[in-house]
Amino acid sequence: MSLDLPPAVDIREVGLRDGLQLERPIGLDAKLAIIAALVATGVRRIEATAFVSPRAVPAMADCDQVAAQLHRWPHVLWSALVASPNGARRALDAGFTELEYVVSAADGHSLANVGRTSDDALALTAPIAELVHQRGGHCEVIVAVAWDCPFDGPTPPARTVEIARRATELGADRLALGDTIGTTTPRRVVDLVQAVRSAAGLDVGVHFHDTRGTGQANVLAAVQAGVTQIDASVGGLGGCPFAPGASGNIATEELVYMLQESGVNTGIDLDAVLVAAGLVEQAVGHPLASSLHRAGGRPKPLGRVGLHLP
Amino acid sequence: MSLDLPPAVDIREVGLRDGLQLERPIGLDAKLAIIAALVATGVRRIEATAFVSPRAVPAMADCDQVAAQLHRWPHVLWSALVASPNGARRALDAGFTELEYVVSAADGHSLANVGRTSDDALALTAPIAELVHQRGGHCEVIVAVAWDCPFDGPTPPARTVEIARRATELGADRLALGDTIGTTTPRRVVDLVQAVRSAAGLDVGVHFHDTRGTGQANVLAAVQAGVTQIDASVGGLGGCPFAPGASGNIATEELVYMLQESGVNTGIDLDAVLVAAGLVEQAVGHPLASSLHRAGGRPKPLGRVGLHLP
Repeated sequence: MSLDLPPAVDIREVGLRDGLQLERPIGLDAKLAIIAALVATGVRRIEATAFVSPRAVPAMADCDQVAAQLHRWPHVLWSALVASPNGARRALDAGFTELEYVVSAADGHSLANVGRTSDDALALTAPIAELVHQRGGHCEVIVAVAWDCPFDGPTPPARTVEIARRATELGADRLALGDTIGTTTPRRVVDLVQAVRSAAGLDVGVHFHDTRGTGQANVLAAVQAGVTQIDASVGGLGGCPFAPGASGNIATEELVYMLQESGVNTGIDLDAVLVAAGLVEQAVGHPLASSLHRAGGRPKPLGRVGLHLP
Repeated sequence: MSLDLPPAVDIREVGLRDGLQLERPIGLDAKLAIIAALVATGVRRIEATAFVSPRAVPAMADCDQVAAQLHRWPHVLWSALVASPNGARRALDAGFTELEYVVSAADGHSLANVGRTSDDALALTAPIAELVHQRGGHCEVIVAVAWDCPFDGPTPPARTVEIARRATELGADRLALGDTIGTTTPRRVVDLVQAVRSAAGLDVGVHFHDTRGTGQANVLAAVQAGVTQIDASVGGLGGCPFAPGASGNIATEELVYMLQESGVNTGIDLDAVLVAAGLVEQAVGHPLASSLHRAGGRPKPLGRVGLHLP
């Protein structure tokens, strides 16, 4: 038996959006320093911000100011998250062409998150995709609570598949599955990825939270099932490490370490991610969840000076 | 593609030994309460203690007192770690028949750990195995720093294979590979497990530390390669969560969750592990590393009362 892994994967850094959205807003200068550090890691895709209500998500209130700076790094594929056609218009006007739109697969989460049923949220895929396509861009639909909903319990796989299939019909150019509360596990990952890909006829990305220590195992299962689009957050940012049950995305540095050491190219420099994580930790003012951020990569050998114990 | 997972695995709980050995000694009553809670999880194999120098490892100084109580749970396969023939004699006199003996695959770690070269430590396998076999027991050799040594750097796979093969010739009945500093990753796991199994002609267990967030991914790779013997520690106990770079074993509860939800039977009740982790946290007096201990298993659905936001 040999692990069947792809030669390379494409990681999207979501720390600036999913990572920071629950934090107290940080200053624009600090955010731009983090952005520069993330760009320096070599990551090719970065979700920069969200065009959503600044009352609901104060940490994203600077979305236009952030957008105005991104021309400095033209080789990165920048994207923004939106929650409505109005948000899509704002993001496009700010210069984004790549948008992520979240559709929850369960009404409980959809109502809590955007005040609409999942069917109503799904229907908005069409006008959002149309706006994006008018500007020559691409619209990715992220299916949230794809495996489990905190309000409704397990999401029937057929419902996630249906949402993904209809989103594609309504104009989505890409799909991703979100494990919003960090409950899924390798077998469920493989089963759902395969079912969605087969029904929607599109490649499927994955967006895991590492709430129960299974995030990297889920990635390993996903890449074995052919997934090459993976979201991750520098430092495992997201949620609050002091709140019971809260947790962030899988940590970019742990993902890069696990994959690169297994022969899967990510194009990302591990040491540079650790530099970025240091900036993030300083900016948010609390320890990050990432174990690798604390431990570092493979340590340099200590040598044996003074080691010859009796 | 479908994940090729075994129907069941055999987990060994090592929290009482590898987990507690770096902690301040806890009282015998607290330890016995933890043991009772671990037994209640349904785990079939528990490493109860170590017969080593009480000066070097004060937390294991109560090994004889612990041993004297284990007759209360006769259905559990109890084992003890030893570091020398003298320790093996003490363990056997205390009633153990299943012993673990650690041989480091690199001289740097071997000298630091037991004051002997790895060849000298390996040679002791013979008298230890002979003592154990005289009592009708079994001797497992755990190859430490099987992938990387903190002092010597990467361990040549051929060296780990050689140690394992010779240990088997010297009488070892079982083998396990220890990722002592938590650096290994899925591809390396599969490669080394297969090489060792093929050279030694024995099944190979795994002992991972979750220092860089890859512990569960390593397990997923190992079980796909046919491994069914896995060490884990309640609460991810081991090391100190506040010390840079220190980290414990993979957490039993995260392992059980990941495997059971993927259809792999462990015989262990997740809720009971969380009860045991609570006792451990109380006893050691600091937060445990396990994310699942904080988050709990799959949450009960919250329902939608009050959820219809504007």
